[in-house]
Amino acid sequence: MVNQVHCTDSNSPLAKYESSGTSSSGGDSSKESSRCSTPLLDSDRTDRLREKMRHRMESGDRWFSLEFFPPRTASGAVNLISRFDRMGAGGPLFIDVTWHPAGDPGSDKETSSMMIASTAVNYCGLESVLHITCCNQSKEKISQHLIKAKKLGLKNIMALRGDPIGNEWEEEAGGFSYATDLVKHVRCEFEDYFDICVAGYPTGHPEAKSYEEDLRHLKEKVDAGADFIITQLFFRSETFLKFLKDCQAIGITCPIVPGIFPIQGYQSLRQLVKLSKLEVPEEIKEVMEPIKDNDAAIRNYGIDQAVEMCKVLLHSGEVPGLHFYTLNREVATMEVLRRLGLWLEDPRSGPLQKSTHCPCMSIRTEDLRLRPLPWAVSAHPKRKVEDVRPIFWASRPKSYIYRTQDWDEFPNGRWGNSSSPAFGELNDYYLFYLKSKCAKDALLKMWGEELMSEESVYEVFTCYIAGKPNHNGHKVTCLPWNDDPLASETNLLKEELEKVNRRGVLTINSQPNINGKPSSDPIVGWGPSGGYVFQKAYMEFFTSSENVSALLKVLKKYEPRVNYHIVNVKGENVTNAHDMQPNAVTWGIFPGREIIQPTVVDPVSFMSWKDEAFALWIEQWAKLYEEESPSRMIIQYIHDNYYLVNLVDNDFPLESCLWQVIEDMCKLLDSPVEHPAELQP
Amino acid sequence: MVNQVHCTDSNSPLAKYESSGTSSSGGDSSKESSRCSTPLLDSDRTDRLREKMRHRMESGDRWFSLEFFPPRTASGAVNLISRFDRMGAGGPLFIDVTWHPAGDPGSDKETSSMMIASTAVNYCGLESVLHITCCNQSKEKISQHLIKAKKLGLKNIMALRGDPIGNEWEEEAGGFSYATDLVKHVRCEFEDYFDICVAGYPTGHPEAKSYEEDLRHLKEKVDAGADFIITQLFFRSETFLKFLKDCQAIGITCPIVPGIFPIQGYQSLRQLVKLSKLEVPEEIKEVMEPIKDNDAAIRNYGIDQAVEMCKVLLHSGEVPGLHFYTLNREVATMEVLRRLGLWLEDPRSGPLQKSTHCPCMSIRTEDLRLRPLPWAVSAHPKRKVEDVRPIFWASRPKSYIYRTQDWDEFPNGRWGNSSSPAFGELNDYYLFYLKSKCAKDALLKMWGEELMSEESVYEVFTCYIAGKPNHNGHKVTCLPWNDDPLASETNLLKEELEKVNRRGVLTINSQPNINGKPSSDPIVGWGPSGGYVFQKAYMEFFTSSENVSALLKVLKKYEPRVNYHIVNVKGENVTNAHDMQPNAVTWGIFPGREIIQPTVVDPVSFMSWKDEAFALWIEQWAKLYEEESPSRMIIQYIHDNYYLVNLVDNDFPLESCLWQVIEDMCKLLDSPVEHPAELQP
Repeated sequence: MVNQVHCTDSNSPLAKYESSGTSSSGGDSSKESSRCSTPLLDSDRTDRLREKMRHRMESGDRWFSLEFFPPRTASGAVNLISRFDRMGAGGPLFIDVTWHPAGDPGSDKETSSMMIASTAVNYCGLESVLHITCCNQSKEKISQHLIKAKKLGLKNIMALRGDPIGNEWEEEAGGFSYATDLVKHVRCEFEDYFDICVAGYPTGHPEAKSYEEDLRHLKEKVDAGADFIITQLFFRSETFLKFLKDCQAIGITCPIVPGIFPIQGYQSLRQLVKLSKLEVPEEIKEVMEPIKDNDAAIRNYGIDQAVEMCKVLLHSGEVPGLHFYTLNREVATMEVLRRLGLWLEDPRSGPLQKSTHCPCMSIRTEDLRLRPLPWAVSAHPKRKVEDVRPIFWASRPKSYIYRTQDWDEFPNGRWGNSSSPAFGELNDYYLFYLKSKCAKDALLKMWGEELMSEESVYEVFTCYIAGKPNHNGHKVTCLPWNDDPLASETNLLKEELEKVNRRGVLTINSQPNINGKPSSDPIVGWGPSGGYVFQKAYMEFFTSSENVSALLKVLKKYEPRVNYHIVNVKGENVTNAHDMQPNAVTWGIFPGREIIQPTVVDPVSFMSWKDEAFALWIEQWAKLYEEESPSRMIIQYIHDNYYLVNLVDNDFPLESCLWQVIEDMCKLLDSPVEHPAELQP
Repeated sequence: MVNQVHCTDSNSPLAKYESSGTSSSGGDSSKESSRCSTPLLDSDRTDRLREKMRHRMESGDRWFSLEFFPPRTASGAVNLISRFDRMGAGGPLFIDVTWHPAGDPGSDKETSSMMIASTAVNYCGLESVLHITCCNQSKEKISQHLIKAKKLGLKNIMALRGDPIGNEWEEEAGGFSYATDLVKHVRCEFEDYFDICVAGYPTGHPEAKSYEEDLRHLKEKVDAGADFIITQLFFRSETFLKFLKDCQAIGITCPIVPGIFPIQGYQSLRQLVKLSKLEVPEEIKEVMEPIKDNDAAIRNYGIDQAVEMCKVLLHSGEVPGLHFYTLNREVATMEVLRRLGLWLEDPRSGPLQKSTHCPCMSIRTEDLRLRPLPWAVSAHPKRKVEDVRPIFWASRPKSYIYRTQDWDEFPNGRWGNSSSPAFGELNDYYLFYLKSKCAKDALLKMWGEELMSEESVYEVFTCYIAGKPNHNGHKVTCLPWNDDPLASETNLLKEELEKVNRRGVLTINSQPNINGKPSSDPIVGWGPSGGYVFQKAYMEFFTSSENVSALLKVLKKYEPRVNYHIVNVKGENVTNAHDMQPNAVTWGIFPGREIIQPTVVDPVSFMSWKDEAFALWIEQWAKLYEEESPSRMIIQYIHDNYYLVNLVDNDFPLESCLWQVIEDMCKLLDSPVEHPAELQP
């Protein structure tokens, strides 16, 4: 109870500090105290959704959230996951995924509501709400869904009645008739585990006897244990504001979030209105009629209309956040949010990224920070303590999360304290995430329709690094190990990287050394404000057996400054890692905290990573070509004969020596006397 | 098995690296690996004695060890512990403590062999060997002793027969007749837990039938499980070298360490010779006879004689280390060791502190390093993983070890992961360690026979910091919180500290900020070579309630740069620590390792420290004066009314702002306008 405010003697100089945001306590407090089990992790990673909402409301920060529906096809799922990443970057407080009873929503199919929500939480790190409907479902089935959701790391449920199948409303024997029953059931079976959202109808539910009766139903849902309300879409701000006032009048005190629907097309609006039994106001119809065949004009109007309505809502002071019905599209919603100033353009330099001295403000700043650690965090509750990862999966965080999904604990503090990590096997479901976002055609254009030699491969790597087109004029925007263009941090090393790739040092991961940059640095910064971040220079690459021979000789000169680990596909490896210990290569020092070391080079997990790194040659690249074709054989040769190498320069305060290491290697290879003798022992 | 050397394809560039000190492995090794549970801790802290010996022998490094006997009185124990600290600084591989059957050697008395050896291990961090004799003792009693020794953290036993009581040799019923039986018993009951040393007699045991028979007995002891041999003293190097050869001839392969006895006085030599039934060679007698009444001459001769003999032994190449019979005296042994170049003058800059690139050499260097962490480590096996402590006990490491002796685990990695630490209570046994090394008289001279006011106390602190004599001409070399003169590191802050103490900011602990000094730095360095160490500026002091009022106002300007914790004896406290998290204030970055953060400022343990810090005012200072005397009342007033304050400047790359904080506090107090209004609310 050390952290609690106690009464102190009023003559004490501490007396006046009791309610000033500092913590103070009295009496014999040395024995009874609770420790925080995670030193760094900010409220954003540890709080539940309703707490985050409360913090935002208390601090006056507005939020937004985004609604998606599950895709129909596996490739639709791949696209939606990319969209989660792109839209997640704008800083939504949460996303929600609708429940489609006809689409086997609770199944393990990658297109099910359940799996899409799970992917958003686990792989995209998004706070997510899973819709669930109760009509035409047995209690047991619903409980099964909820148990599964909990196991997958889902923490929030939108409890809905759902639409009856067909026109007739039929009560399921032993099932639920109303969302209220579902809310009660969730609270009864799962106590306080889930945060529960319910739907509100600003113009009343179409099936309700009256607006007032519908309000009473809503009050019942809240009383049964709902934490907040999201409303059905509406077209006039007055509609929502009146509804809000009416809700408050009957004693509803939880947050009520307006559902915003930017009109994106004439036909889609007509269909939606029909389904939801809403009426489009005359003033909107009047504007839309004349432009109904001009899609662009309709979209622009939709954006304008949504922005105007949202501005009124936000200015009312009654609206803490906005919920967007995206229809799985990006442009309109992002534009509305940008115009409202709610979209986080750059999580580290946006207008909300204030440096502040007030304790409550600093919570707020950290809530909004999207980079609590220098890698993509997962939102699964069991991973909320995770604060260290091997560097190898830096460009493949989803794969890392997948391969460690069965871990019960996450190295919490020192990586070295964990027991030997058992990484999940490479398998089909994994390969679903391992798939490139690009189509085969596009990949062939980037990586070469036909490879002539190993040098053709060097060119692909060089073009990717340089951001330049290949000799056929196609820009290389990804590699099997890097699904996205070069990170801004890696860009710092562009020139040197280009040079070494040209020499057949095929880099797949690297970071510059950093000697104490502010944690607010737009490129390399992460973690709470007022801190300093550090890095050791790191480089990871594939290279030929000939290069490795020379490299090993050169590396002797760099002991103990450079740590290395070299392995081929068969697992033959050599390292100078001391006692196989992990080497911390990224760390941060923050005010009033312990040291955080989120990234390590770990010789043990490197052996798991190499399986994945070598497999990508075959799975993503070689298989683009016919079996037995020369192109495929070149990639296969590299896969079979090249080595995967990682190098760490431990002397982080000095300029990185890793370029010099490669240069020395090249010089040794070029040296006419020594070189041939060395190669043929 | 990743770290093990496997065969690789002979065409592989890795093939030639298999036996070159780097580690290499082949095959599917990702799944089976053992992790080191402690990232930093060097072989010196984790290896057992016989392993350390083996490392030293392999690397050709000579060692020395020191023998002590238990003291007769409690104050003798206090002196011996100080001697352990002083002689431990020279770098002995181990010390050993003799077993005195007549002195209740296994008891809990602070003068028993058991407790002295335990103190050496636990509080002085010395690898220690406890002698134990078996004659006239039952098996059960011996097992009890061994169980107790194990519990206390003792890992090494010197197994001896001991001398019979009286002249007649009487076999204990059910007991042991020979050391061999004791060795067998230890191995039988404790398997491989203890390292076992046995005694060798270079001229044969006085009771043995022949030299050859005694050699056979020695071989039996080794065959029964002894790990190494220490010999009885001798006077000629030839004696030992012949003995060594004879041992090897009959198949004794374990290390045999010569016991060296520097002659320190004529009488003591006569007595020893009589007891051990040894003969002093004529050439020694001849030199000593004429100078037998000149103690200094005898001592000088003894040193010369020991140095010459040791040189011959070391130059023979057959002697890996030297064992010294110190007779609990320092001067002669230290002088011999200094002349031999074996005494580690400065653990960080001695001739053995080489920077090296060879892996086996780097083990050797780390073995010799006496500062693996920036505080005094304990040698208890359960503490071998300990690598973080609160800063508060920096000057009182024995007290910290005592108060945490019941902990089962030591915060291993992050302090914050430990459960709430329960510190041992202040009690009498603790007060034994809490006692000042100085006598009451000396303390009164330093701290004042009579105190006139609180300012008299300020003067004592100021003189201590400045290393200057007080107004009565007595140098102040210790304070209740600092048993020793100012540490060289604190000396860096001397001038500023003097200034603030004069103002009644009574500092008891401080460290400067350090932004990446080499780990080999002679003042602030620690840990393996090639690393960098860092610190946040820290200051801890007692000060008046008036000062605290002003300080709290001033500190608002320094949020969030400065973390503070302020508490009085009643436990009333205020802090701005974030979520009561520990703040790392000393950390190190090393090649190929994880970050080490050995020192934290922890708001929770600060509440335990304050009990001790306030108690020292009374126990060590107030009690020097008569009850009700004005001097005692002044100290009592300070104890009752002052606050204990700690400040951390988080901005370690900038010049410390803590002096400015104090200056601002003083300015506020001196300001004629604002000040009176503030003080009388």
